[in-house]
Amino acid sequence: MAEFSQFGGGGRLRHLLTLDGLEPDLIRELLDRAGAWLSRPGELPRRGHELQGWTVANLFAEPSTRTRASFELAALRLGADAVNLDMMLSSRAKGESVLDTIYTLQAMQVDVFVIRDAEPGVPEYVARHVEPQVSVISGGEAHLSHPTQGLLDALTILQYKGGFRDLAVTIVGDVRHSRVARSASTALAALGVGELRLVAPAELMPDADEFPGALRFESFDAGIAHADVVMMLRIQRERIAATPQPDLARYHELYGLTAARLHRARPEAIVMHPGPMNRGVEISTDVADGPQSVIRRQVTNGVAIRMAVLAHIAATRRGCAL
Amino acid sequence: MAEFSQFGGGGRLRHLLTLDGLEPDLIRELLDRAGAWLSRPGELPRRGHELQGWTVANLFAEPSTRTRASFELAALRLGADAVNLDMMLSSRAKGESVLDTIYTLQAMQVDVFVIRDAEPGVPEYVARHVEPQVSVISGGEAHLSHPTQGLLDALTILQYKGGFRDLAVTIVGDVRHSRVARSASTALAALGVGELRLVAPAELMPDADEFPGALRFESFDAGIAHADVVMMLRIQRERIAATPQPDLARYHELYGLTAARLHRARPEAIVMHPGPMNRGVEISTDVADGPQSVIRRQVTNGVAIRMAVLAHIAATRRGCAL
Amino acid sequence: MAEFSQFGGGGRLRHLLTLDGLEPDLIRELLDRAGAWLSRPGELPRRGHELQGWTVANLFAEPSTRTRASFELAALRLGADAVNLDMMLSSRAKGESVLDTIYTLQAMQVDVFVIRDAEPGVPEYVARHVEPQVSVISGGEAHLSHPTQGLLDALTILQYKGGFRDLAVTIVGDVRHSRVARSASTALAALGVGELRLVAPAELMPDADEFPGALRFESFDAGIAHADVVMMLRIQRERIAATPQPDLARYHELYGLTAARLHRARPEAIVMHPGPMNRGVEISTDVADGPQSVIRRQVTNGVAIRMAVLAHIAATRRGCAL
Repeated sequence: MAEFSQFGGGGRLRHLLTLDGLEPDLIRELLDRAGAWLSRPGELPRRGHELQGWTVANLFAEPSTRTRASFELAALRLGADAVNLDMMLSSRAKGESVLDTIYTLQAMQVDVFVIRDAEPGVPEYVARHVEPQVSVISGGEAHLSHPTQGLLDALTILQYKGGFRDLAVTIVGDVRHSRVARSASTALAALGVGELRLVAPAELMPDADEFPGALRFESFDAGIAHADVVMMLRIQRERIAATPQPDLARYHELYGLTAARLHRARPEAIVMHPGPMNRGVEISTDVADGPQSVIRRQVTNGVAIRMAVLAHIAATRRGCAL
Repeated sequence: MAEFSQFGGGGRLRHLLTLDGLEPDLIRELLDRAGAWLSRPGELPRRGHELQGWTVANLFAEPSTRTRASFELAALRLGADAVNLDMMLSSRAKGESVLDTIYTLQAMQVDVFVIRDAEPGVPEYVARHVEPQVSVISGGEAHLSHPTQGLLDALTILQYKGGFRDLAVTIVGDVRHSRVARSASTALAALGVGELRLVAPAELMPDADEFPGALRFESFDAGIAHADVVMMLRIQRERIAATPQPDLARYHELYGLTAARLHRARPEAIVMHPGPMNRGVEISTDVADGPQSVIRRQVTNGVAIRMAVLAHIAATRRGCAL
Repeated sequence: MAEFSQFGGGGRLRHLLTLDGLEPDLIRELLDRAGAWLSRPGELPRRGHELQGWTVANLFAEPSTRTRASFELAALRLGADAVNLDMMLSSRAKGESVLDTIYTLQAMQVDVFVIRDAEPGVPEYVARHVEPQVSVISGGEAHLSHPTQGLLDALTILQYKGGFRDLAVTIVGDVRHSRVARSASTALAALGVGELRLVAPAELMPDADEFPGALRFESFDAGIAHADVVMMLRIQRERIAATPQPDLARYHELYGLTAARLHRARPEAIVMHPGPMNRGVEISTDVADGPQSVIRRQVTNGVAIRMAVLAHIAATRRGCAL
């Protein structure tokens, strides 16, 4: 199969399926642009016309309030029409193939597909087949990739820490099955993060050839020591059952972020979580709502990142137009 | 727990969770403003820019075509972006708490949450926790409160009767479990209704300390005599099973509004129903579609009331802005 | 019951429930107007203001991504507000009658109802009851009628063949249960198609009094010979089970369109399918994606036809306004 590239002309993104291969300058540009879409607290959100006349279709095969709503609002605030399709409930239920659904929507002049699917490879498969003027953005692909989440995590760290070079970032939980961890680590590596640490029980630790350069810890206490950023992952209850700590209370004791444990990080460390949180499991409520938590800022940054990505893709297309 | 107030600055509404405590002047202002959003029959609906740039999220945990669509259209016709979230199908299904869903959407800069939930206290619980610039409107709270319904009922009565002072209003059916009856009676009491009557079988009559001043009747024929307004409530089939008249035909005979029974009211009495109707149970089809029925006007007024409430809240916020 | 007419003033459409009775000139006008809504490949879709201030409600009782999305985009691109209601999941679930749902939405000032329902007669039943300024468009009615599909099929043939007079059009598959076949044949007959052929196993052939003038073939090879247009229909798997060829492979052998069989048609014949396709059953993948396939063009034309119908209905209403 031919090499696939998510880039259009001039090294600019036509699609966004993964952060792999993105130049640091491009990532920094996207973070910078996203920052410009943020408004001050209490103000109405910034709006633009970059997607006026465009149609964005959100195709989410998993239920997901937050990411779908985030993309929908990003599209609407840039002037696009947005249509939501639950692929499991619609034509796929009649046996239509994914690609025929895409071809159909493309023929209705959908310009951007935002796709979340539990099956690996779906976004690239779609992106390989759409027409030249159509773009695909991954809204989360299996355990592999969640590029806008990686960007919003990087933006959040940048806002609070001013840079990446001197930071120790600790990612905690089910790293093995986490697209959030993969995309965050790719972004952070590209941006030159000082030290990336993974904390997980052995069963949930990724294979050795993944996360190059990351330090690995089974002990949360060891992995969090003097960290600048503590990024907690959502744990699936069924994953816990597969570990030697098969109950929630025991998991919380070993891998839950509590105030006591957070004291081992740097005093000004920030706490992140991609949501939705299992309060009392991977994170205690006092930490989730505490002064070091930047979890809600991540969500706000998520809309801004998605606006930046959509506007970037629109600019790429205009640059390519004859 | 600290006292909660739904008011913002200057005695104006920041939230709308209940009609309890609303000054008559404020209710009259809302009815007046709603009237200004009505167009003439056959004309396109009035539109405004009061919510331009705002985002309204409709969170409905119960299926409800009419109220959700009414709020959605009210928001769109004022220029807002509207997103619909079925809370039962989305992140709550993953175990996310109500509050985390709210915080997440708030962080995406949702300005107004319209919330319908079967559990008492959810709207206030949310309103206590949102940021100062965010508003909550109840779209129906358990059996307790349905404030926009109460306002639209008052508006409808005002349109047809010109006032409240000399009226006898009869509310009929499952008053005990009805948020519609509670909000209507609060509005009518504030507006100085002449006489409020409740008609219900004993099992469906509210406790004695509720509906102060209302006259109570087990006999529909007695309660409807010379009434100016007959407000029928929707009956749940499972409620009928709990009464001594456990079948639909018998319930209809005792508590259904028929043309014959309507003759006992004043000749110019109006017939109301919040919908959806059980035709042939609490109301006969000839009455529902007859010349005294104002049921469709209630629906039209519902959109106008929701526009008035949204615009009022937007004005409150602008008044508070620095 | 009184005669029903879908026409408003001046022989123009107020509703669109069926293509029966449409004058050829009116059909040609709609095709012509639809053509004007098409943009060049890669360009953004054309937009208009014809429905500015209007509200279009899509009521689909069957799951159907493509047609619902097509109507939604047509409405949005003409400036309307669009609300989607899954009637099976909303107030009907509470026992509300279809008509009360319609009356409620009408009272919210919905201007156009797009209705798809498996039950025959629902669109006309609704159209008989709505107020004079409200229109109903069928989005597919049982096995009977799918008028916008018939128009988009005619438009597609016109684009590729320049006319209808000298054409042989072959419709293949479950003609008996197909609203697509019925509406296409009505449109083609009105436009003076040269020859209409139906190909189906006996069990799936319509009754003799339907499709007047059409030639009928049990043999696909006979029916496709020298055809200019081959219109494949979607087969329901449960229908196959009712034929003497009760498995998919056997059905494909007898009634599937393969490259070999397509060779029997004229060399420049076009291949159509209303979607969603059962690839490998009624159509082979190489034909579906081959150079003679115009299936995606049909989808694009579908949005344009729906915009033309909506704009036509809006013009009818403006013409009638006092």
